[in-house]
Amino acid sequence: MATAEPAANRETSTEHETTRLEAFSDGVFAIAITLLVLEIKVPHFEGTATSSALADALLKQWPSYLALVTSFFTVLIMWVHHHIVLRLVRRADVNLLFVNGFLLLFISVVPFPTAVVAEYLGTPAAPAACTLYAGFFVGISVCFQLLVGSAFRETVLAPDASHATIRRLRRSYWAGPPLYLVATATAPFFPLAAIGICTALWIFWAAMTREC
Amino acid sequence: MATAEPAANRETSTEHETTRLEAFSDGVFAIAITLLVLEIKVPHFEGTATSSALADALLKQWPSYLALVTSFFTVLIMWVHHHIVLRLVRRADVNLLFVNGFLLLFISVVPFPTAVVAEYLGTPAAPAACTLYAGFFVGISVCFQLLVGSAFRETVLAPDASHATIRRLRRSYWAGPPLYLVATATAPFFPLAAIGICTALWIFWAAMTREC
Amino acid sequence: MATAEPAANRETSTEHETTRLEAFSDGVFAIAITLLVLEIKVPHFEGTATSSALADALLKQWPSYLALVTSFFTVLIMWVHHHIVLRLVRRADVNLLFVNGFLLLFISVVPFPTAVVAEYLGTPAAPAACTLYAGFFVGISVCFQLLVGSAFRETVLAPDASHATIRRLRRSYWAGPPLYLVATATAPFFPLAAIGICTALWIFWAAMTREC
Amino acid sequence: MATAEPAANRETSTEHETTRLEAFSDGVFAIAITLLVLEIKVPHFEGTATSSALADALLKQWPSYLALVTSFFTVLIMWVHHHIVLRLVRRADVNLLFVNGFLLLFISVVPFPTAVVAEYLGTPAAPAACTLYAGFFVGISVCFQLLVGSAFRETVLAPDASHATIRRLRRSYWAGPPLYLVATATAPFFPLAAIGICTALWIFWAAMTREC
Repeated sequence: MATAEPAANRETSTEHETTRLEAFSDGVFAIAITLLVLEIKVPHFEGTATSSALADALLKQWPSYLALVTSFFTVLIMWVHHHIVLRLVRRADVNLLFVNGFLLLFISVVPFPTAVVAEYLGTPAAPAACTLYAGFFVGISVCFQLLVGSAFRETVLAPDASHATIRRLRRSYWAGPPLYLVATATAPFFPLAAIGICTALWIFWAAMTREC
Repeated sequence: MATAEPAANRETSTEHETTRLEAFSDGVFAIAITLLVLEIKVPHFEGTATSSALADALLKQWPSYLALVTSFFTVLIMWVHHHIVLRLVRRADVNLLFVNGFLLLFISVVPFPTAVVAEYLGTPAAPAACTLYAGFFVGISVCFQLLVGSAFRETVLAPDASHATIRRLRRSYWAGPPLYLVATATAPFFPLAAIGICTALWIFWAAMTREC
Repeated sequence: MATAEPAANRETSTEHETTRLEAFSDGVFAIAITLLVLEIKVPHFEGTATSSALADALLKQWPSYLALVTSFFTVLIMWVHHHIVLRLVRRADVNLLFVNGFLLLFISVVPFPTAVVAEYLGTPAAPAACTLYAGFFVGISVCFQLLVGSAFRETVLAPDASHATIRRLRRSYWAGPPLYLVATATAPFFPLAAIGICTALWIFWAAMTREC
Repeated sequence: MATAEPAANRETSTEHETTRLEAFSDGVFAIAITLLVLEIKVPHFEGTATSSALADALLKQWPSYLALVTSFFTVLIMWVHHHIVLRLVRRADVNLLFVNGFLLLFISVVPFPTAVVAEYLGTPAAPAACTLYAGFFVGISVCFQLLVGSAFRETVLAPDASHATIRRLRRSYWAGPPLYLVATATAPFFPLAAIGICTALWIFWAAMTREC
């Protein structure tokens, strides 16, 4: 059909590619977020449990609920920003595909550090658990920085992407890795504070979306 | 391309955003609904089981099946209504994104209270299990109310959304939180009745879709 | 925008609805098919295992592999036919939404009977396990029949749907429930034969798609 | 509507079919990739664990992390190439549907050999575990070869698909099965080397995408 216009045809193909990249990423984000529930365990008892024993056991699992909510919103907000960044991109080249692949690897693994925190917060092993958790988000935020760097190149940006928007987004994202590093350094001494910093961060980035 | 028409271009962007919001929400709904199966456990035996022992064990798991069916249809019907509401929306602003995020958090966690009911219905701990279940759906229905409130604002509604339709939908949805509260108050005394009220509710909202 | 043409607008809305129904169904089919892998357990040993002990244990799990392959292709072929049927449908009404909901409930639960067969095929409890499996597919095929009946009504069919195609599809699908019933009746006496009938059936429907 | 142009209408239908095939495949790829995380187990201890005991236990799980990363990128790169190949296809016929089905079966099962390697790498049973893993990827690469063979037929190729591109893709893909066979033959003697070959292969195919 378009054999006489190979360039125009290639353009269409790569735009199609961006759509499939976004759809695939959406899938991984949505599945990772939903698999978090598998880390909340149904309490078990030796012998028959009374109703108040079950209620007690459910309440004692608060670290599981806290870890799930923190991870859920961190990933959800990252999905929103992933979406804001890719909206400015015209086509996905190999560089972007790979950086996105590393980000998806980290996103898909989020249920693991979440489960570790859920099991060990409130025990003597909390420092190690929270260090793993915060350190893991250092990795995620570095990947997100690489994605932003890869997306905001002239060769892949949409021609009508606003330079002001790009500058504003860059400015707000760079804070991620250092602040998660602070959380990681805090975790061995004040494990719960590290989770608090992670919570403060997703609320900050959530507020950020108001201006996008 | 559209540098001369930034407003028109932005319109397109936000419409695209609604599509991705719906696709992401669909993903979470579909995964949550399918993960329910993981709560049904294969019966295990000490030593080798006879065929009739396995059949007995499978039948004794009826609370698992009841809990799965109730949760499956409640989430499925909520998906249909989520769809009916968002069909009237022209663009997704930050407010809508967040309210939708809270709803998705609850939807993704549905397998957990379902598993608790599956394990403890028919045991002395049934009151606590069913209170958790019905109370959880109070939370879901409050989130859905917030979504409806956020979607039916002039700034995000589609220009051709019928006011009569909006009034009718509002009228049918507000009953959710109080009726789930009744179920929650019933659960400590008549656990099975609470599940019955939850079942009656999804059948009611299913019937409601007939008029949409 | 389209306030002057409410009818045309509604048309567009309902067509959009069919797309979202298909996308949601695709999600449940894809997730159910992929969750089957969770039923294959990594062999565990008391003490350290030798390489040949692990190889032996992996080979002894053949019922798991057989059950996975049978369920995978049965669901995959049903997805293809779900797709062939819905391609002929112009709009999704409430009737179709519900019948499709029942089908999705069964599809999402497929990993459970598959896991039961995987664990008990080759044990004295195989008759009960295979009866559950084949009986479950009676339920699925009845739902599929209801879907076909609901889709092939004048009110929802696309205007250009060929009557010859519809007749041919109806003819090939009605065999499902009785043949799965035969498999169910066979299972208590010849459990492996019941799985064989289920395998023969997906191969038959797979061959059927050649003419669509 | 298109009753006067049945041929053109059928064309549209089959193009639609390709889209749904891609979307369904994307779903299976995305879910399989995300389920890999379920194979990483949270360490458990008898009695209360200290922080350093948890840190130790987490580090000792390195085979789990290695297996996850290898499988994640192998599947991700295969998804990219699946996408590159299907972009050249105009319509999905039954042959392509089935070959794609076999590929999806293998993709959906990837978490199983990954979990086996995660548990037995670094134990005396590593040879059996790595032979299973590499042998499994022989199967996957054979399926991918069949997909390429099925996609690059005149009857389904897009009219503007470049013959040079097709030749180049064919040339780079055929190396898959023999190289995975080498890895499989290596595994009984040098299990870790087999995983190394698998890693080298996904890096090679990743580099390949640079030219597509």
